[in-house]
Amino acid sequence: MINRQFTLAARPQGLVKRSDFAYAETPLPEPKDGELLVKTLYISLDPAMRGWMNEGKSYIRPVAIGEVMRAGTLGEVLVSKTPAFKAGDHVVGNWGVQDYAALPPEGLSKVDPRLAPLPKYLGVLGMPGLTAYFGLLEIGQPKPGEVVVVSGAAGAVGQVVGQIAKLKGCTVIGIAGGADKCAYVVRDLGFDACVDYKSQDVKKALRELAPKGVDVYFDNVGGDILDAVLTQIRMKARIVICGAISQYNNTTPVKGPSNYMSLLVNRARMEGMVVFDWAPRYGEAIQAMGAWLAEGQLKSREDIVQGLETFPETLNKLFSGENFGKLMIQV
Amino acid sequence: MINRQFTLAARPQGLVKRSDFAYAETPLPEPKDGELLVKTLYISLDPAMRGWMNEGKSYIRPVAIGEVMRAGTLGEVLVSKTPAFKAGDHVVGNWGVQDYAALPPEGLSKVDPRLAPLPKYLGVLGMPGLTAYFGLLEIGQPKPGEVVVVSGAAGAVGQVVGQIAKLKGCTVIGIAGGADKCAYVVRDLGFDACVDYKSQDVKKALRELAPKGVDVYFDNVGGDILDAVLTQIRMKARIVICGAISQYNNTTPVKGPSNYMSLLVNRARMEGMVVFDWAPRYGEAIQAMGAWLAEGQLKSREDIVQGLETFPETLNKLFSGENFGKLMIQV
Repeated sequence: MINRQFTLAARPQGLVKRSDFAYAETPLPEPKDGELLVKTLYISLDPAMRGWMNEGKSYIRPVAIGEVMRAGTLGEVLVSKTPAFKAGDHVVGNWGVQDYAALPPEGLSKVDPRLAPLPKYLGVLGMPGLTAYFGLLEIGQPKPGEVVVVSGAAGAVGQVVGQIAKLKGCTVIGIAGGADKCAYVVRDLGFDACVDYKSQDVKKALRELAPKGVDVYFDNVGGDILDAVLTQIRMKARIVICGAISQYNNTTPVKGPSNYMSLLVNRARMEGMVVFDWAPRYGEAIQAMGAWLAEGQLKSREDIVQGLETFPETLNKLFSGENFGKLMIQV
Repeated sequence: MINRQFTLAARPQGLVKRSDFAYAETPLPEPKDGELLVKTLYISLDPAMRGWMNEGKSYIRPVAIGEVMRAGTLGEVLVSKTPAFKAGDHVVGNWGVQDYAALPPEGLSKVDPRLAPLPKYLGVLGMPGLTAYFGLLEIGQPKPGEVVVVSGAAGAVGQVVGQIAKLKGCTVIGIAGGADKCAYVVRDLGFDACVDYKSQDVKKALRELAPKGVDVYFDNVGGDILDAVLTQIRMKARIVICGAISQYNNTTPVKGPSNYMSLLVNRARMEGMVVFDWAPRYGEAIQAMGAWLAEGQLKSREDIVQGLETFPETLNKLFSGENFGKLMIQV
């Protein structure tokens, strides 16, 4: 048995190329005492991965050249030399883009495939769902009756943000690329409206959909869309900075929000969030979202690509906007 | 007796020109019943005035073409036909760039020339001081031992921000243009350090002065300095957006802060403030700052130019950075 791996070979300029990774076939690793051997079933693809490939200080250390590319993962325990898990358990972790890993139990969590299909544990019940939950509720602080706007609305985080905002009694407007995605978030997920940024003027559309302005904006994309929303915010608005996927592959400087003085005019706030800070409260969020899922109040869509070998090209689907729902690879 | 006035003649492009105003000599106004006649002694010049000259929605309506240019003012009551004031009283208000005004008592406040020299009531005990007080304490929320950075440090707002931060037990770093201003805020006002943005690399200087990072940044200038400070913020930092004087005369789009994603990396917040929101608490702030002034714990410097006729050129001193301390005209 071989262990296929993608390691980081070079720090990418702009979009990721296959040559930024080295593909290797290595022997099956051997768990030491206290460790376990996992077989990867699903690999999560997230916009944050692009940032991890860059040098420089961030909220997490960069992936080193030669290191297995970091990624959220879900797998099955094949061999356990620790009492924490037993063979056959399903676990989520961050063992990266490879078929197998031998590793200690720290940082792994058990998941139950009878409660929800496995892919949900990388999406709505995983990092993207948790990001949506804490980012919206704790940083955005939406109140019933307020207008919440979310970009990347059909994406892994956005789809959860909008549905939770609806559950909290808000009017919810999504921003997404394409008629299919917009139809999905309105018809299937219950958003009140969706702006197709590919065919509509975002500023004008928001002015029509929310004539009194936007109270909470959950930003996954940055760039021109952030700038457009800034012109439409209401007094005391809260902008949650979760990501800026439009800017991650820039080879020129990031486009800062020219209209940031709207924060002053509207006494508004823009605040960044990183989901890891909320780890002590993950249980609470998973319980709440699990209950909503069970009751059918929270839906999610996954975009599952087959084959570990597709990794570099599948990752770029995030940035071209081709993916629809939570993107992952089934190994 | 004539009443000299500057009215707005055109909406300026870039820096204000004399031809953007109309100068007129009009008859002395006559107060109606319930009104009073004031003689202007000092006219306040504030960066916000540039914004009031532009069209478009903001936190206050624009000055109309043909209207007397809006400005904070301090004067003496000559005639009173209202019980609220009597002849000889000194009042502050917003009757604009003119020698005299007949107006109702609403929006006027009495000041006492025996407690503090009159110019202080347009500076440290006026809008700039109140902006510093509420912006720093309520939005910046500095805690003892934290590092506070303020731009425009020798300006009307900045000098008060830094001194209050020192009083609250913070380490205070100013950013100002020129060695004289830097020497003033350190030697005379007690700031811990000052970066001269004209001769120093702001980012590098901050890295040396605050190796653990900046907790609170009070921004009066925007542009490249905001961007440099964003690279040096600490976890959970607060950025108070008070102004962006570097951008007010742009004829090209405002330079948005390219490094705003530092808010995400550092789970930090950027929030705008407008002093008018705090009007119900002005009394509290004036009492606190008046006591600090009396005890010598709060100092201030005014830059007083003689002659109402200098108004257009004096206003531009704000944007060239020529003024040193709170800029005003003595009529």
